[in-house]
Amino acid sequence: MTKSLSLNPDRLFSPNESVRGIARRLYAEVKGLPIISPHGHTDPSWFADDEPFANPAALFVEPDHYVYRMLYSQGIKLEQLGIPDINGKRADVDPRDVWALFAANIHLFRGTPSQTWLNWVFAEVFGLDVRLSSETAGLYYDTIDAALKTDAFRPRSLFDRYNIEVIATTEGALDGLEHHKKIMAANASGEWKGKVVTAYRPDGVIDPEFEGFADNLKALGDLTGEDTQSWTGYLNAHRKRRAYFAEHGATSTDHGHVTAATANLSAAECEALFRRVTAGAASAEDAELFRGQMLTEMAKMSLDDGLVMQVHPGSFRNHNQGIFETYGRDKGADIPTRTDYVRALKPLLDVVGTEASLSIILFTLDESVYARELAPLAGHYPCLKLGPSWWFHDSPEGMRRFRQMTTETAGFYNTVGFNDDTRAFLSIPARHDVARRMDCNWLAELVADHRIEEDEAAELAVDLAYNLAKKAYKL
Amino acid sequence: MTKSLSLNPDRLFSPNESVRGIARRLYAEVKGLPIISPHGHTDPSWFADDEPFANPAALFVEPDHYVYRMLYSQGIKLEQLGIPDINGKRADVDPRDVWALFAANIHLFRGTPSQTWLNWVFAEVFGLDVRLSSETAGLYYDTIDAALKTDAFRPRSLFDRYNIEVIATTEGALDGLEHHKKIMAANASGEWKGKVVTAYRPDGVIDPEFEGFADNLKALGDLTGEDTQSWTGYLNAHRKRRAYFAEHGATSTDHGHVTAATANLSAAECEALFRRVTAGAASAEDAELFRGQMLTEMAKMSLDDGLVMQVHPGSFRNHNQGIFETYGRDKGADIPTRTDYVRALKPLLDVVGTEASLSIILFTLDESVYARELAPLAGHYPCLKLGPSWWFHDSPEGMRRFRQMTTETAGFYNTVGFNDDTRAFLSIPARHDVARRMDCNWLAELVADHRIEEDEAAELAVDLAYNLAKKAYKL
Amino acid sequence: MTKSLSLNPDRLFSPNESVRGIARRLYAEVKGLPIISPHGHTDPSWFADDEPFANPAALFVEPDHYVYRMLYSQGIKLEQLGIPDINGKRADVDPRDVWALFAANIHLFRGTPSQTWLNWVFAEVFGLDVRLSSETAGLYYDTIDAALKTDAFRPRSLFDRYNIEVIATTEGALDGLEHHKKIMAANASGEWKGKVVTAYRPDGVIDPEFEGFADNLKALGDLTGEDTQSWTGYLNAHRKRRAYFAEHGATSTDHGHVTAATANLSAAECEALFRRVTAGAASAEDAELFRGQMLTEMAKMSLDDGLVMQVHPGSFRNHNQGIFETYGRDKGADIPTRTDYVRALKPLLDVVGTEASLSIILFTLDESVYARELAPLAGHYPCLKLGPSWWFHDSPEGMRRFRQMTTETAGFYNTVGFNDDTRAFLSIPARHDVARRMDCNWLAELVADHRIEEDEAAELAVDLAYNLAKKAYKL
Repeated sequence: MTKSLSLNPDRLFSPNESVRGIARRLYAEVKGLPIISPHGHTDPSWFADDEPFANPAALFVEPDHYVYRMLYSQGIKLEQLGIPDINGKRADVDPRDVWALFAANIHLFRGTPSQTWLNWVFAEVFGLDVRLSSETAGLYYDTIDAALKTDAFRPRSLFDRYNIEVIATTEGALDGLEHHKKIMAANASGEWKGKVVTAYRPDGVIDPEFEGFADNLKALGDLTGEDTQSWTGYLNAHRKRRAYFAEHGATSTDHGHVTAATANLSAAECEALFRRVTAGAASAEDAELFRGQMLTEMAKMSLDDGLVMQVHPGSFRNHNQGIFETYGRDKGADIPTRTDYVRALKPLLDVVGTEASLSIILFTLDESVYARELAPLAGHYPCLKLGPSWWFHDSPEGMRRFRQMTTETAGFYNTVGFNDDTRAFLSIPARHDVARRMDCNWLAELVADHRIEEDEAAELAVDLAYNLAKKAYKL
Repeated sequence: MTKSLSLNPDRLFSPNESVRGIARRLYAEVKGLPIISPHGHTDPSWFADDEPFANPAALFVEPDHYVYRMLYSQGIKLEQLGIPDINGKRADVDPRDVWALFAANIHLFRGTPSQTWLNWVFAEVFGLDVRLSSETAGLYYDTIDAALKTDAFRPRSLFDRYNIEVIATTEGALDGLEHHKKIMAANASGEWKGKVVTAYRPDGVIDPEFEGFADNLKALGDLTGEDTQSWTGYLNAHRKRRAYFAEHGATSTDHGHVTAATANLSAAECEALFRRVTAGAASAEDAELFRGQMLTEMAKMSLDDGLVMQVHPGSFRNHNQGIFETYGRDKGADIPTRTDYVRALKPLLDVVGTEASLSIILFTLDESVYARELAPLAGHYPCLKLGPSWWFHDSPEGMRRFRQMTTETAGFYNTVGFNDDTRAFLSIPARHDVARRMDCNWLAELVADHRIEEDEAAELAVDLAYNLAKKAYKL
Repeated sequence: MTKSLSLNPDRLFSPNESVRGIARRLYAEVKGLPIISPHGHTDPSWFADDEPFANPAALFVEPDHYVYRMLYSQGIKLEQLGIPDINGKRADVDPRDVWALFAANIHLFRGTPSQTWLNWVFAEVFGLDVRLSSETAGLYYDTIDAALKTDAFRPRSLFDRYNIEVIATTEGALDGLEHHKKIMAANASGEWKGKVVTAYRPDGVIDPEFEGFADNLKALGDLTGEDTQSWTGYLNAHRKRRAYFAEHGATSTDHGHVTAATANLSAAECEALFRRVTAGAASAEDAELFRGQMLTEMAKMSLDDGLVMQVHPGSFRNHNQGIFETYGRDKGADIPTRTDYVRALKPLLDVVGTEASLSIILFTLDESVYARELAPLAGHYPCLKLGPSWWFHDSPEGMRRFRQMTTETAGFYNTVGFNDDTRAFLSIPARHDVARRMDCNWLAELVADHRIEEDEAAELAVDLAYNLAKKAYKL
């Protein structure tokens, strides 16, 4: 039996009438605000080239590790889902079959944010009014596929329709930013006015354990004309790339290290360490120390060039050896680990901690640090701010815990609003909508038990939905 | 003043009318489902011999460490409660005095699940309609004692009355399973149709630090005709015992190690390690490594014989030295510790992680890993499933946190329903009832704020109460 | 626009009508109970000398690290707030300007307990009926300043008006307790009947890493006539100081170590360790071991003299190097760290764990240990009790999590009621009021979903608000 799909206007609001009433009023004022997307992983070529998306499976399954990790966990093989292997080779599967397999297993997503995001896209973007199931898989495929062939569903049209004021992508240090150039040209010519900026993610030239690190260092030298085999030249190369990224709109850097470790070595120690690292003689401890020292160096450069620094630590990458060997990185096999911040960040903070002009935005995959470490740190150090609940915790319950565990010590103004951090372009408004609803609901709870007044909540709702992200990321 | 005892039909449901209404409807459909008890510690002799239980104190206080640990924490000595010492010697206490002491301190259990379980048994099983107190202690003792002397309160009658479809006990590797044989004979003759299966718990022959390990290994050799001083013979002995347990109904193994550490050693390393272990020359690190390697070996055997694997790590056993010396193991003095899974399980997962035919059910006493480690692991690896909230967390708030922190990443279908894990036979329906109520309430919350639809919740309620346990444990 | 300030009588109660109704009834019975303040950091000279407080900024901003850490986190410098530096020197700032700066940033405190405490004091103590803002800063300053000049706002008058039955201050081992003597004299003469006791906080003579440790040891010898360079003499000196503190009302000791580590060394090991410590040759490991051994020694002394022992571990003190160098200790730069209790406390518990006459009250800044470690420990060991949620967690959400995560395993009777732990004298009733409201609300939730009966909750409410603290601290 086909079941109807509709989005309840009160979704994610407390069933308590008093709280819900307040949440509704707060949400009404922020619902229509433009989207600030200050950190994410959309592909800039989409907006540069404005080509149509290929088909429903290629749009919803193949790029979304939230989706295929869940299917994989229940015994479905990645090859059945058309996921390309490490050589880009894909099993010969019909996208319609991939879609049918997805539809037959849609019940696995009950209670997950994926279900919420997907249903929003199905209903709001494609106008579907029945739920996805084996029965409706064909109808879904045809409807979506037909829409994708129209101009209204090209990336730039969706960008405009989604009311995105600005979106940031994330590029490696060696990226030529060709797509961003093309977009800037389109902006300049008046062809398209969408604002798409980049962010500087130098992991590949900072982490000695990154695949191809030595080659990356060489390429960095070629690109900048600096001697990246010397410590001074290497730092200069970073300065040049940062400036280049800033010219293409970047207002931030981003660092995805295994831990939050930082270091504060003397110049001589730095040079000795860098020699071991470039000689390929770095131990695991050296690699960790080098990453740590480079976070401090990046912070010092941020003091000079004003780029906001984002730290995303704590993921054990490529945990599934079999999947890594066959399919490579970023295949839904990254697992969070326990992460310390208090001792880890001290060396960096000893150097730049008291600088009020510096902004370092901290993220975590370890919720046990919210109340214990991150809120006390951000509630004290002028340079520290808290990023929103991240990745596995970018969800209603995750957002609720974030606010419950950080607000009392860090307040709201040491947080930076929401960012979607996603590759799944179509769901970006759905994700911001979840954040806005959950924040309005949290504020409503504070109003309902008289911890704050409704006029304070109304001001906060706009700050959380719009102002804080814009200010924190200088957008 | 005597106070009335009654079980409210809405107990454990949200006071919010909207949530409660949904929870009621969901619960109405699962309330009467048969009990699947796939993991626990009831004594198979109860069902083999069907002897009456001795008296109220022997039934409610002596075997229930939840009860006597709380009394002990407030200064009551175990000898006052009739707990036998390590030699089985018991202070000369009248069970009526034990009962009176328990009754006088019943307020200590306010807000604990013990109170919920006990009141259910008092009201539902023994028909008591006043609360336990010093005043009513005598009435309670007489009522319960009289009931226990009747046939309706013998183990098999209670089993039938409790609508238990199947119950699993847990036996050590050296157990002859005589009670299970007797029950199977009763099943075969039609004398009793209750289904009681065993589970293979080989800690005593796997953990080099277990009391009597060397003797246990010898006994394992005698029992199986294998040379348990050789690595190959030792593994063969396990295979034979697993097969023997499977013949007596076992569908699972169970492993209660100090940590979740696993290992993936070469054959030569295994043999060298085993030599150190059997020579009594194992260091603490060797012991940990051996337990870890054996988890991997058990997983490989499960691939062959299909037994589901349960891992119950993270308890610091016998923490109270004084109690351990006088009273021995399992006296309410086990304390949970911080437990890592991400690094600990990797060696095992490198070997069998991608096998969809294997089932490893993970438990934890460290709730900080729910959202950070366990849900991401189970939401990815096809062989991993999450057991329900365990031991100290087998409680309304514990269950709520389990669902709040695992659902969004692992969904519902990477969990395995409820198991009671108890020695306290009389409270088994009460425990399943708490789980069913809390799950229905959680589903009702998801429906009430429109994260799922009520028809989805209704299907899930039955899955959580019945289908998932049956499927996960192959019962 | 000036906004009205009023305290809603239902603040902090659930918006659910059923829960709120029960909470109101419970709260009505405890609201007026006298305040037992068994642990805190008020200055005994206030009550000895009864001098008026200086001005609004000196009263609300300068002594309250909750307040100035938040302002500092948003780029306001401590010198702008009139915080004296490490030499007691203060920038030349007008208290009116400090107050105006505070008022202009009051929005930073939205959703924090500081806002709740402050608003209570503004409304209840000073009768203000408009909210603090830049607009009303002058009105506030004038109103408060004028009040402080009246007798009704001197410390003793406020103490009486606040219905404080007893308050404990905290003094170092070398303190002469002159203020307490003066108060005792006033009590004896009938001049004032307020009860102000001390607590023995010997960190400065126990922690080898404490500033001035060697001098402190010498002073301890001079004060007691014991040879504090010998292990035996050192222990005797502690015994004498403990007796001296007890004579001046102390019923407890307090220990603020970096970790919860304890030790159980032989007499010979103790002497050798003490020699290293007194020789200034102690390594970091020695220092940690010595602190740990001393916790065990303190526990043994408590067995003799009956002083209740408080353990407050887990704070990384003086994390901000720049602030520490310029402003010194206790400037809002202490950050919580992950803390283990299970292994840490075992050596001490091996010695005194089974003693029901001993009371050790455990606190934590690491909430992940509530359900995993502290509740299981306190729900077993007769000597252990749980202190209330502490410092960063002394807040509505912090209190909620404390009850949610400890009640089911430790019950209520292994907890010790509330203590305010504060220097902010004016807000003491506000803090106790938050605790009473949150406890009543938690009890109401347990009643509303039928986990306990309302008559049980009513008894518990009084115990949590008054009886437990009085009993646990022997006051």
